[in-house]
Amino acid sequence: MAIERRALTEDELAAALRELPAWEVQDGKLHRELGFADFSEAWGFMSRAALVAEKLDHHPDWSNVWATVVIDLSTHDLGGIGTLDVEFAHRVDALAG
Amino acid sequence: MAIERRALTEDELAAALRELPAWEVQDGKLHRELGFADFSEAWGFMSRAALVAEKLDHHPDWSNVWATVVIDLSTHDLGGIGTLDVEFAHRVDALAG
Amino acid sequence: MAIERRALTEDELAAALRELPAWEVQDGKLHRELGFADFSEAWGFMSRAALVAEKLDHHPDWSNVWATVVIDLSTHDLGGIGTLDVEFAHRVDALAG
Amino acid sequence: MAIERRALTEDELAAALRELPAWEVQDGKLHRELGFADFSEAWGFMSRAALVAEKLDHHPDWSNVWATVVIDLSTHDLGGIGTLDVEFAHRVDALAG
Repeated sequence: MAIERRALTEDELAAALRELPAWEVQDGKLHRELGFADFSEAWGFMSRAALVAEKLDHHPDWSNVWATVVIDLSTHDLGGIGTLDVEFAHRVDALAG
Repeated sequence: MAIERRALTEDELAAALRELPAWEVQDGKLHRELGFADFSEAWGFMSRAALVAEKLDHHPDWSNVWATVVIDLSTHDLGGIGTLDVEFAHRVDALAG
Repeated sequence: MAIERRALTEDELAAALRELPAWEVQDGKLHRELGFADFSEAWGFMSRAALVAEKLDHHPDWSNVWATVVIDLSTHDLGGIGTLDVEFAHRVDALAG
Repeated sequence: MAIERRALTEDELAAALRELPAWEVQDGKLHRELGFADFSEAWGFMSRAALVAEKLDHHPDWSNVWATVVIDLSTHDLGGIGTLDVEFAHRVDALAG
């Protein structure tokens, strides 16, 4: 993982969001809600996203209710949205297909 | 699973809570926050709780941030806390050790 | 789960196999090998199949190497292939897409 | 992960095995069989070991039957047991408690 871990500038965040149309900034975090067919499909997604989190050593705030998964990404100690949040968001998009 | 799926009376709920000291009622749901050593341990717990959910065909509202898992249990179509929520809570307690 | 748990007759097994073209009988077990794009995709499948196993209370002999999952199904105490093996195989096929 | 990925010399392997009493060399692989209370506990372990595999980018040959998990570790392209196999084995031991 050669991703430099740092906060984004406002311009970088704006650019990142253009590449991440399913995401928005909510309460200072990258936010996406994903809908699946049922719990099983949601859980299959979460199991893969957990691998991503551990691989990046960067973990989401996330919640699940039945077939819905909500993800909020920020880098606590950097006080905002950072490079790893953007990377995580792209990987979520790849998994969500 | 021979558990009759129905709402609890107030007396039943009070009795159930006496058996579930780690849980409280919050916004009309059975609520527990669990702390683990790290994400891996939290995820191991969630992976086992997912099996319980699918086995009971009763799924939690739950969220995870790093080593913390928050669980809220209610039975939406019964308009409150039901027998399966109590069963799920006991199984969470057994998994949490 | 209203599936009666019992061994299959030879005729029933032959009929079941016609509905399960990806499966064969190997060493007295229903056998399928599944290939995925990578470990993550294989693991997402396994995480969903684990839910099926726990829900049916019927668990596979299975193995994983990177992107490959091999599943062998039999009902030990019935001494062969049973109704739950066939049900599990169909659910695997549904998950494998 | 600052672990240099390379094959072990015979002396290094012998030394590694002294630190890994639950493991033996079988068919040229580091081999351990783990027993759990039931499928749920075995699955909780596997879910955590999957995180390790993805984090190390080093994946086991493993199989599961109900409460038993068998793990075989080798580094295919190095033609034998390597540094990452030893690291993975230590992490398995830590998870198995």
